[in-house]
Amino acid sequence: MTDNELKTILDGVSPAYPDAVKAAVKRQSELAKPPRSLGMLEDISIRLAGITGSVRNDPDRCLVAVFAADNGVVNEGVAVTPQSVTLEQAVNMTRRRTGMSVLAKRFGDEVRVYDVGINAPAHPALITKKLRRGTGSILRGPAMTRGEALFAAAVGIEAAKKAKEDGFSLMGIGEMGIGNTTTSAAVLTALTGCSAESATGRGSGLSDEALARKIRVVGEAVRLNSPDPSDPVDVIAKVGGLDIAAMTGAYIGCAYHRLPAVADGFISVVAALSAVRLCPAARDFIFLSHASEEPGYKLAADELGISPFLLLGMRLGEGSGCPIAFEVIKAACAVMNGMATFSEASIDDGYLKNLDEVKDFNYKA
Amino acid sequence: MTDNELKTILDGVSPAYPDAVKAAVKRQSELAKPPRSLGMLEDISIRLAGITGSVRNDPDRCLVAVFAADNGVVNEGVAVTPQSVTLEQAVNMTRRRTGMSVLAKRFGDEVRVYDVGINAPAHPALITKKLRRGTGSILRGPAMTRGEALFAAAVGIEAAKKAKEDGFSLMGIGEMGIGNTTTSAAVLTALTGCSAESATGRGSGLSDEALARKIRVVGEAVRLNSPDPSDPVDVIAKVGGLDIAAMTGAYIGCAYHRLPAVADGFISVVAALSAVRLCPAARDFIFLSHASEEPGYKLAADELGISPFLLLGMRLGEGSGCPIAFEVIKAACAVMNGMATFSEASIDDGYLKNLDEVKDFNYKA
Repeated sequence: MTDNELKTILDGVSPAYPDAVKAAVKRQSELAKPPRSLGMLEDISIRLAGITGSVRNDPDRCLVAVFAADNGVVNEGVAVTPQSVTLEQAVNMTRRRTGMSVLAKRFGDEVRVYDVGINAPAHPALITKKLRRGTGSILRGPAMTRGEALFAAAVGIEAAKKAKEDGFSLMGIGEMGIGNTTTSAAVLTALTGCSAESATGRGSGLSDEALARKIRVVGEAVRLNSPDPSDPVDVIAKVGGLDIAAMTGAYIGCAYHRLPAVADGFISVVAALSAVRLCPAARDFIFLSHASEEPGYKLAADELGISPFLLLGMRLGEGSGCPIAFEVIKAACAVMNGMATFSEASIDDGYLKNLDEVKDFNYKA
Repeated sequence: MTDNELKTILDGVSPAYPDAVKAAVKRQSELAKPPRSLGMLEDISIRLAGITGSVRNDPDRCLVAVFAADNGVVNEGVAVTPQSVTLEQAVNMTRRRTGMSVLAKRFGDEVRVYDVGINAPAHPALITKKLRRGTGSILRGPAMTRGEALFAAAVGIEAAKKAKEDGFSLMGIGEMGIGNTTTSAAVLTALTGCSAESATGRGSGLSDEALARKIRVVGEAVRLNSPDPSDPVDVIAKVGGLDIAAMTGAYIGCAYHRLPAVADGFISVVAALSAVRLCPAARDFIFLSHASEEPGYKLAADELGISPFLLLGMRLGEGSGCPIAFEVIKAACAVMNGMATFSEASIDDGYLKNLDEVKDFNYKA
C-alpha cells in the first residue's frame, strides 16, 4: 500500500450517521426507565446505531482478530518473557487454549490470528502476511521502513474487509508480541508528547529496576528516532511495531467498512489512537472494553475520549476482554430492542379492577 | 420465622471450603499467563471454587430473583415516580419488557418476581408472599414489626432454597419498590453510622431540593426510630422495607444452600451488607456486579470488602446488572477450565524444525 492508497481509504471513511444517532437517542428517552439510568448500555446502543444506520441492532457473529509480531526492542531487556512465546501463544490462540481464545470459545466467537512479523518461519495455523521477521530495536534506529509499516497496515485493512464480507457484526482487535508494551509506550509518547514515565508500565511483570530501564528505553527511542507526531505512519515505523501497524490498519478498515471495532488492552488502544490521528472519523467506530492496568492505557483512552466499560483488573493483552465486551454490546442492543416504552409499560389491563382481594394474604405470620 | 429459627439457619452457614480455594489458587498460578494478569476473572473463579468445593465450575442455569414491595416513605416526597409503578414494573419484568428482564431473556436467564409487600392486590404474574401492602413511613415510626421483617426474610431464604432445588447455579438478587433508595440509605446509615448525606443519592432522578429533603428524611428516620445497629433485623424492621428484608434473607439462604449470589445495585448491596452483618460467613457467597452510581453504593461495597467488576454507569435497579454479571462469571470459569498450563503451552511439536522457510515471504512490498 502506498501513502496515496492509504489516503484514498482515509478519505473514504464517513462518520456516524447523524439521523440514526438522533433516532436512537429519541428511542432511549422513550424507554420506560429513569433518564440515563442504563448508562453506558444506552451510549453503546446509540453509537452502534450511528455505525450501522439502524436503531435496532443484534450483533450475533463476533470475531477477535489478533495481529502478532516480534519486536527487536526485546534485546534491550524490556520484557521478562522470551521472544519464542510470541509464536507459541499465537498458535495456542488458534487451538483455543489462551486467555482470550478460551473466552471466545465459551461465547461462540471466531478467532483469526495474523502473523504480521513473528520472528519465526510461517506456521500453518496462522494467517501469514509478513515482509520480515520481527523489527529492529527502536533503541538502535527505526523499527522498520515506512513501506513495511504501510504493508502491515494494509494487512489490517484487508482483515477488516474480510471480516465484513464474512458477515461478522463486531470485530475485536487483539495482539501478541513480546516487547509490544514498550513500543506502544513509545508510540503513545511520540503521538501525545506525554512523558515516557507516564506511558510506560510493567507489562507482564517487570521489577522496579527493569521498569526504570524500560522507561529509559522508551524515552531514548523517541529522542533518537524523533518521529513526526503529526504523521502516525512515521511514528509507528520508527518507534512502533508491525503488530501496532496492522492493528492501526484494522481500525481504519473497520471504519471504512462500517464494522464496529472493539479495542482491548494497552497496545490495542494505542493503535486505536493512531488510527484516529490518521482519520478522526474512525473514532465513531471504536468501543473500549476493559480498563487495562497499564498506566498508559488511561492516557490513550482519555485522548480518544472513549470510556471502557469493564473493570476487571486485566492486563493479559491478546484481546482477552473482547469476548466479554461483545456480550456487553449484545446486552446494550437487547435493551434498545426489547424494553417497553413508557406508553407500552402500563399494565392497566382491567385485571386490577376485578380482583378478589382476599387472595392477597396467602400466609399467616 | 422466629428469631430462633433464623439463628438456626445462620448457625448452619459455613464459609468457603479452604482446600478448594487453595487448589484453585494453585491452578491459576499454573495457567500460562503472567501472574494475576486476568485480575478479577481469577478472583471470581477462586471464590466460586470456595463455594462449590470444585476447582472447575460451569454455571449454565442462572436466575434473577426480584423482591418487590412498597414503602410508606414515598408519602414524604422522596421519589419522583408514583407508587403504582412498583406493581407495573414487577409485572412487566415477568413479561420480559424491563431493563433487567430483557437482558435476562437475551442471555437465557430465568426471572422470578416475588411480591413481598406491593401496595396492591395479588397479581397472578407474581409469586405473592406478603403479610401487608407496603410499609409505614419511616419518618412517622417503624416501617414494620419485627415479625413482619422475619416473615419477609423467610420468603427470601425459601426463594434461595427453591432456586438450589431447581438446579440454578447462580442467583442474582434484584428489587422493585418505589422509595427503596431512601430506606436503603436509612439502613446503611443505621448499620454503619455513616452520615445521611453520604448514604443518600438521587435515586431515579431527584432535583437538588428533593435530594436535600430525602437526606433530611433519612437522617430523621434513623434518629426517630433509633434502631440497634448490632441487630440488622431491628434495623430493617424500623427503617428498612419488606424488599430489603426479603433480599437479606435471600443472601442468607444462598449462603446456607451454597448457591453463589450476585448483588446488583444500591438496594441489593445494602441487603447484602445486612446479611453479612447477621452472618459474616455469608460474605463468601456474594459477588458484586456493577458499580452503581448511587453514592451509598461504594460505602456499602467497601464495608463488604468486595469489588464490583462492571463499570457501566447504571442506576436502574431491578438487578439489571445481573445478566451481564452472569456472563462475566461464566467467562471466569472458562479461563479456569480451558486455559493451557505452562507445561501444556509449549508448541514444540517438531513442526518448526522441518519448515520450508521459503513459505515465509508470501508477498512482495
